[in-house]
Amino acid sequence: MNSIGRFRLEHTDGKARCGCLQTLHGKIYTPAFMPVGTQGSVKSLCPVDLQAVGAGIILGNTYHLYLRPGDELLAQMGGLHRFMNWKGPILTDSGGFQVFSLSDLRKITSEGVEFKSHLDGSRHFFTPEKVIRIQRNIGSDIMMVLDECVPYGADVAYTRNSMHRTTQWARKSREFYTGETGGQLMFAIVQGGFFMDLRRESAARITEIPMDGYAIGGVSVGETKQEMLETIYFSAPLLPEDRPRYLMGVGKPLDILEGINAGIDMFDCVLPTRNARNGTLYTSFGKVNIKQARYQRDEAVLDPECDCYTCMNFSRAYLRHLYKAGEILSLRLNTIHNLRFFINLAQKARSAIMENQFAPLLAKYRNMEMEQEG
Amino acid sequence: MNSIGRFRLEHTDGKARCGCLQTLHGKIYTPAFMPVGTQGSVKSLCPVDLQAVGAGIILGNTYHLYLRPGDELLAQMGGLHRFMNWKGPILTDSGGFQVFSLSDLRKITSEGVEFKSHLDGSRHFFTPEKVIRIQRNIGSDIMMVLDECVPYGADVAYTRNSMHRTTQWARKSREFYTGETGGQLMFAIVQGGFFMDLRRESAARITEIPMDGYAIGGVSVGETKQEMLETIYFSAPLLPEDRPRYLMGVGKPLDILEGINAGIDMFDCVLPTRNARNGTLYTSFGKVNIKQARYQRDEAVLDPECDCYTCMNFSRAYLRHLYKAGEILSLRLNTIHNLRFFINLAQKARSAIMENQFAPLLAKYRNMEMEQEG
Repeated sequence: MNSIGRFRLEHTDGKARCGCLQTLHGKIYTPAFMPVGTQGSVKSLCPVDLQAVGAGIILGNTYHLYLRPGDELLAQMGGLHRFMNWKGPILTDSGGFQVFSLSDLRKITSEGVEFKSHLDGSRHFFTPEKVIRIQRNIGSDIMMVLDECVPYGADVAYTRNSMHRTTQWARKSREFYTGETGGQLMFAIVQGGFFMDLRRESAARITEIPMDGYAIGGVSVGETKQEMLETIYFSAPLLPEDRPRYLMGVGKPLDILEGINAGIDMFDCVLPTRNARNGTLYTSFGKVNIKQARYQRDEAVLDPECDCYTCMNFSRAYLRHLYKAGEILSLRLNTIHNLRFFINLAQKARSAIMENQFAPLLAKYRNMEMEQEG
Repeated sequence: MNSIGRFRLEHTDGKARCGCLQTLHGKIYTPAFMPVGTQGSVKSLCPVDLQAVGAGIILGNTYHLYLRPGDELLAQMGGLHRFMNWKGPILTDSGGFQVFSLSDLRKITSEGVEFKSHLDGSRHFFTPEKVIRIQRNIGSDIMMVLDECVPYGADVAYTRNSMHRTTQWARKSREFYTGETGGQLMFAIVQGGFFMDLRRESAARITEIPMDGYAIGGVSVGETKQEMLETIYFSAPLLPEDRPRYLMGVGKPLDILEGINAGIDMFDCVLPTRNARNGTLYTSFGKVNIKQARYQRDEAVLDPECDCYTCMNFSRAYLRHLYKAGEILSLRLNTIHNLRFFINLAQKARSAIMENQFAPLLAKYRNMEMEQEG
């Protein structure tokens, strides 16, 4: 292992942490929110837009990129960074979540998982080794090991068995790629569903395997908010302090702050980008549904506290018009705003932690959520 | 009339002209290609993109803007410029073409035209006066008078009758809005189908009405290339030299150069934007269908002679991937390139005219077209 020193813990405020992770394509300052760029673009945005919203790292989906354009093509093109002209860090997931959520047929063995492409029905087999080989071709800065994301409601026996398989796959992944100086980083994933004893065992076994970072997977799969929070607060402290902690697929703004409060460093979620395309926008005063008639003649900017291109240049009335008229520009302006909101949230958390002021920030968002629910 | 001096003819090379038109929102240098922004955005682009491709003026569609978001809303929002945050000049068409091409039912009288909205089937009546009132609300720099765009194949009797009505409407429009110092400009439209004697008569009568510019309408409606060229070359010299000449809805790159050669100053067409969204891209070496498998591993930029953001940053392989994957970014990168190509073509024509070198430029494009057809 040569990853020691790649992550530097800069400051803590309670359990909340600020850190810095050195990757092949630069430093990531944590807490960080990572926009999702499934198949070689963060939907509707170009690299300049991503820089403008302050993205320090983006995510790519191994499953999608493997199927199209194909990891060998990407390798031939000099990797995903060069292909999409994004010069910052990229994290790729393992494809496990997509295999289990998008693919028709799937057959899991201890060797790996067979699945049918959602594009053309062709059959494929992912092994832990193959998934790393694909990510080596993609050239991502952070590779995730293959895991099984257990569906919500799975029983304890199934979840335990699956968790052991995920651990075994992590071991095989590390053996397959032992790392190299200044090379791609590898993160493994804690599973165990919503059984805290399984989470504890998963964390204990996964963290025995030397990795550059550790993730909490298997949340945001349909569980209650209470279950999610319990799992996050239980699992985060089980991970080593000197490695970055990544909470996969989470979440709403308050969920992210709760994660940070539990000691998580990195987050990704499709919420800001997907909701942008549905006209649901996040603001400093809560969610806005830009479709609503009340915005038809509203000359105000979407969020007066926001510094994004959309808020600096356009009115709510214009954003509503673009959405109602089905204009493509609507997708981009909304995406720019929502991503800026999420990235800025993580940046505000970072500043607050640095000044030992994280608790008031969290309290503010907890109160806002209570007000919106009430 | 207070428009004398608004247009300055700078230089001629044969019949090809360079000019400068002063509008409320700045100068337009001609020959100029105007991107089409139907309903408050040039599809997929924001104002910064439009500046980057060199757009000196954009077009809005009165029919669409009247129906959605509505011209009264636009007036309340400070006009279309402020609504969409475009600080350059805007030309709005009269809505005539859309009424005759998009609307279900239509009933034409000497008073105006009744039509059903393509959005909700509601009935509306456009008069020459109403169409100017709408464009006053929109606040466009150049307003077009209501005309009837005669369908291809209409007989001489129908075309003559329609042409007289269009002339009458132009007269009513000028009486309704007599112009104001430093105010919105008004252009009228020559019609007459593909009957040259009607074109001559239309031009004679229309140019009797004092206008800030004159347009040639009713081409690009399904006629042969030969018919279109004949009409353009016949009609352009019938228009006054001291006013800008606008060829509506034209066209392909070579058509634009032919228009310039005939003495036309301004052009608009949906080809670059619509084709961009279909994956058809214009380059210095001809049209490219970016869908094709031959570009799958093509690391070259789309057009090495192009200076647009797309060509400065991405490979053909990436553009093909985005198109095949249905990525929204594909629409924008393709649109940026195609618009840059068309705007640059008009700019190159302007430079060539200034140096009395327009003939070789036209010859080059005529040869290229012959090669592509052969």
